[in-house]
Amino acid sequence: MNTHWTVYLSGEIHSDWRERIIKGAKNDGLNIDFTSPVTDHAASDDCGVDILGAEDNSFWHDHKGAGINAIRTRTLIDKADVVVVRFGDKYRQWNAAFDAGFACAQRKPLITLHDPGLTHALKEVDSAAQAVCETPEQVVKILNYVITQR
Amino acid sequence: MNTHWTVYLSGEIHSDWRERIIKGAKNDGLNIDFTSPVTDHAASDDCGVDILGAEDNSFWHDHKGAGINAIRTRTLIDKADVVVVRFGDKYRQWNAAFDAGFACAQRKPLITLHDPGLTHALKEVDSAAQAVCETPEQVVKILNYVITQR
Amino acid sequence: MNTHWTVYLSGEIHSDWRERIIKGAKNDGLNIDFTSPVTDHAASDDCGVDILGAEDNSFWHDHKGAGINAIRTRTLIDKADVVVVRFGDKYRQWNAAFDAGFACAQRKPLITLHDPGLTHALKEVDSAAQAVCETPEQVVKILNYVITQR
Amino acid sequence: MNTHWTVYLSGEIHSDWRERIIKGAKNDGLNIDFTSPVTDHAASDDCGVDILGAEDNSFWHDHKGAGINAIRTRTLIDKADVVVVRFGDKYRQWNAAFDAGFACAQRKPLITLHDPGLTHALKEVDSAAQAVCETPEQVVKILNYVITQR
Amino acid sequence: MNTHWTVYLSGEIHSDWRERIIKGAKNDGLNIDFTSPVTDHAASDDCGVDILGAEDNSFWHDHKGAGINAIRTRTLIDKADVVVVRFGDKYRQWNAAFDAGFACAQRKPLITLHDPGLTHALKEVDSAAQAVCETPEQVVKILNYVITQR
Amino acid sequence: MNTHWTVYLSGEIHSDWRERIIKGAKNDGLNIDFTSPVTDHAASDDCGVDILGAEDNSFWHDHKGAGINAIRTRTLIDKADVVVVRFGDKYRQWNAAFDAGFACAQRKPLITLHDPGLTHALKEVDSAAQAVCETPEQVVKILNYVITQR
Amino acid sequence: MNTHWTVYLSGEIHSDWRERIIKGAKNDGLNIDFTSPVTDHAASDDCGVDILGAEDNSFWHDHKGAGINAIRTRTLIDKADVVVVRFGDKYRQWNAAFDAGFACAQRKPLITLHDPGLTHALKEVDSAAQAVCETPEQVVKILNYVITQR
Amino acid sequence: MNTHWTVYLSGEIHSDWRERIIKGAKNDGLNIDFTSPVTDHAASDDCGVDILGAEDNSFWHDHKGAGINAIRTRTLIDKADVVVVRFGDKYRQWNAAFDAGFACAQRKPLITLHDPGLTHALKEVDSAAQAVCETPEQVVKILNYVITQR
Repeated sequence: MNTHWTVYLSGEIHSDWRERIIKGAKNDGLNIDFTSPVTDHAASDDCGVDILGAEDNSFWHDHKGAGINAIRTRTLIDKADVVVVRFGDKYRQWNAAFDAGFACAQRKPLITLHDPGLTHALKEVDSAAQAVCETPEQVVKILNYVITQR
Repeated sequence: MNTHWTVYLSGEIHSDWRERIIKGAKNDGLNIDFTSPVTDHAASDDCGVDILGAEDNSFWHDHKGAGINAIRTRTLIDKADVVVVRFGDKYRQWNAAFDAGFACAQRKPLITLHDPGLTHALKEVDSAAQAVCETPEQVVKILNYVITQR
Repeated sequence: MNTHWTVYLSGEIHSDWRERIIKGAKNDGLNIDFTSPVTDHAASDDCGVDILGAEDNSFWHDHKGAGINAIRTRTLIDKADVVVVRFGDKYRQWNAAFDAGFACAQRKPLITLHDPGLTHALKEVDSAAQAVCETPEQVVKILNYVITQR
Repeated sequence: MNTHWTVYLSGEIHSDWRERIIKGAKNDGLNIDFTSPVTDHAASDDCGVDILGAEDNSFWHDHKGAGINAIRTRTLIDKADVVVVRFGDKYRQWNAAFDAGFACAQRKPLITLHDPGLTHALKEVDSAAQAVCETPEQVVKILNYVITQR
Repeated sequence: MNTHWTVYLSGEIHSDWRERIIKGAKNDGLNIDFTSPVTDHAASDDCGVDILGAEDNSFWHDHKGAGINAIRTRTLIDKADVVVVRFGDKYRQWNAAFDAGFACAQRKPLITLHDPGLTHALKEVDSAAQAVCETPEQVVKILNYVITQR
Repeated sequence: MNTHWTVYLSGEIHSDWRERIIKGAKNDGLNIDFTSPVTDHAASDDCGVDILGAEDNSFWHDHKGAGINAIRTRTLIDKADVVVVRFGDKYRQWNAAFDAGFACAQRKPLITLHDPGLTHALKEVDSAAQAVCETPEQVVKILNYVITQR
Repeated sequence: MNTHWTVYLSGEIHSDWRERIIKGAKNDGLNIDFTSPVTDHAASDDCGVDILGAEDNSFWHDHKGAGINAIRTRTLIDKADVVVVRFGDKYRQWNAAFDAGFACAQRKPLITLHDPGLTHALKEVDSAAQAVCETPEQVVKILNYVITQR
Repeated sequence: MNTHWTVYLSGEIHSDWRERIIKGAKNDGLNIDFTSPVTDHAASDDCGVDILGAEDNSFWHDHKGAGINAIRTRTLIDKADVVVVRFGDKYRQWNAAFDAGFACAQRKPLITLHDPGLTHALKEVDSAAQAVCETPEQVVKILNYVITQR
């Protein structure tokens, strides 16, 4: 049985981990719709003021953008069967941890993806996950296994 | 009306922000039960292996502790009327952002507390909050206002 | 049986309807905790900037205050057994209608209170209510009846 | 990714804002099902008595119609991913604010659309929204951005 | 907009009200999936013992059948957008009132259908309904109106 | 352990079954708050018009009363740990079956109480119950057992 | 009406009960998507270490595998209309009983399937089920009946 | 802070694990209400027929008892902050695993308690737990830690 699943890919936008998961799933013939936040950093930062008008104060500049991005993020997490959250080495990525908490409270199955060096800092997030991966290829293998039994 | 409220204080454990909020609320005569995660860093890290037995692998060392801490954290967030999340300057504090996402998905009112320098990094978390504070005293004023109208 | 109930009084802040309900319930010996939004108009408008700092832009001035007021409003509606929403003759009172929709989605019993002249404009809100009153005394009689059977 | 979304357009029925949003989204090639309340004012007012029989009392005339309209309204809000609420300059539009509160309690992403002159009166409703727009074209840009990342 | 709706038809199985609604909706070109309990009285009564084995005691005979019928009933009510409940002149039809209470607790829009002579006995059920009809044709008109605005 | 429970007694108001349960529980020393709908038939029928004004049409007479009674009924069912529903020999008692469906959808434990002669007519309601009793004394024994293990 | 249903088949993986149900449903022309846990015993036991790396300690070996299997199990139970749980004669099958409790708390209709010899041991699980079967063919007959009325 | 918690002790009734936990918690001065299923094996098996009348068929004998026990079990699990589930060496204890699944679906924190020899058989249940203990004393230490930080 190769049923249709929807998987949300949250977190880091500065490496190719999404592409590797999407490509790997395609190679394995999995019937998955992958969704994600807006991954264009500049667009994500500026969408609020670009659409709704400029702000002098950077707090409101950010606030306008974050509100609009939340429309996408929450809608797509709500529609997802599984949420994968990637933590990279740079930046604080609090939005990724926020998404993990949000998904956990909704009882969505959660997969985290990060280097072993981040294990201690991510212990609470990992504790809420059903699987903790180090590579995108492991995520693909898990998705393949849970969808197709292979 | 000075009704009884329960407020969960999530996040940073290396400064005196909790004490300042608790003391301020007491000075103002507010009828609040404050709750929090375990704030003893060493105890929080080692509770799993201390109680359930040692682990060679640091991942499972952390995993055991994080599970036990989650029993406290989720129970107390469930019981809380309001969740305050503090982000300090050090450490990654992903558990704080996780708590914020968890509280948001449960539609708990959320107050964040951090320096202006963290505004951009916390924009998604702040966007989910009803108030963004820079000092513990502002948190006390908000609690005083929402509970007593003063 | 005179059990303990909690009743949230939403809406108009420019007449004495709350006092009349609270006094009437007291006279009838009802065991009710009445809660309400902040009813000091100026405090309600300015709490955001008073506590969190001034804003040049009136939109953000209002936004800061509305966020803080929502902490009170949503917490108290969540704790309420019954929500009473009063619409007066002046102002647009969209927050009152918002509270009614919020309470309805949570399946809280809803009582509306307004002059007959507003009937047509309030038909969707009244349709979601279990009772539509014209005077605070009618609200008291309903509360007395549903709590004590008198 | 141009996934399929459902967007409910609540509120004012006396201007062409819905048509402008629907046309704009079509021009942008967005894959959106737009839904709305019944926008024929006379039909909306009289559907109750037209179908279920006349009423002497205008209160029950309105009540019958509001009940039937609620069947449509609540079903379509339940099915929607995003709720847009428009407030015009005329009428009290309490049903629009009611829909906003209803959507907020269900944690649906909310976009408001109104002139700046209504900002103060709508501050509580805007505070619950992820985005506050002044023109239908801004709504289209937000939908385009959150659906297609463009 | 003639969107797709699912409507569950609960209650009386000894008159042709379901056929009249289904036929009327078809004539009006409505895009509705109608669902219902098993309407074959004998099959409904005996399905438990027919499939799972005979019972000496009529209580358990009924119990086995009711359990199996509940699998159908609850699944289809869960999938429905609107629930129509018909009360006829004969029998006690407690299962119809049970379905109405079940649907109400789930906040499903509810339409009741019965003769005026049953009004007093059904007042609590009607009070939870968005519309109270006397004829199947009125139900069709409501469905037509809420789906197509006609 | 003799913990505190709340038990809602729904249904028939023309026999002394409530008194027998309440007295039996008292004799057994059980720590139970019993709640119920308004059991004064005339008051229950007329509360709407008595408080909110007379109606010429008996449908609206009933509708007003049923709305007010629902404020009591739904609030007390929400607060209850267990719901007991009694069906007598007379009247249609659709409100009792409605309450049973309402409680079932909320996953409240349900006890039904009726003569064996009603078994077939009540099979769907009984199927949703955890226990089916014939006498108030059996209800008391069940409450005693589940609360005190005796 | 032969509507589309999704049925999750939980429990025993050492007999052909799933194949018999799937084949029977196919022979009857039923429109059902059957889903199940991974039924390859070795794969199910070892998926964690195969994908995420070996563990010295058998507890963590099992823990890793169980987490991954839960991603499949919970997602598919969430998507299911009905859950069938099979208990065989061998092994403790605690995961099957866990799934039954999980489905019950979500109010999913539940069918159990086991030999009469297990009746006493399974009484709590059977009590939560809408039907208790002894053969896969009975399950097929129930599914046929609830879906097609035949 | 030594707040008040409620802990449900599910599972094995043939050893003194409950007493050891209750005594240990008392010795540590913890403010906990412990609840449990009926732990008198004979009473638990026969409560149904003792109260509601004898059954010839052992299936219905068990069914009546299980229904009554479920009134206690589900009510107390709903009221609990934490659920502890004990698996002993004897019997199949499917009700314990059912309770674990039920608690997990409600997102209650879960602690399991069993000998290491049961690890493989309980891997799915343990995977849903926040902590896996081997002795009642470990459970007490966890409760002490999560409640008092000691």
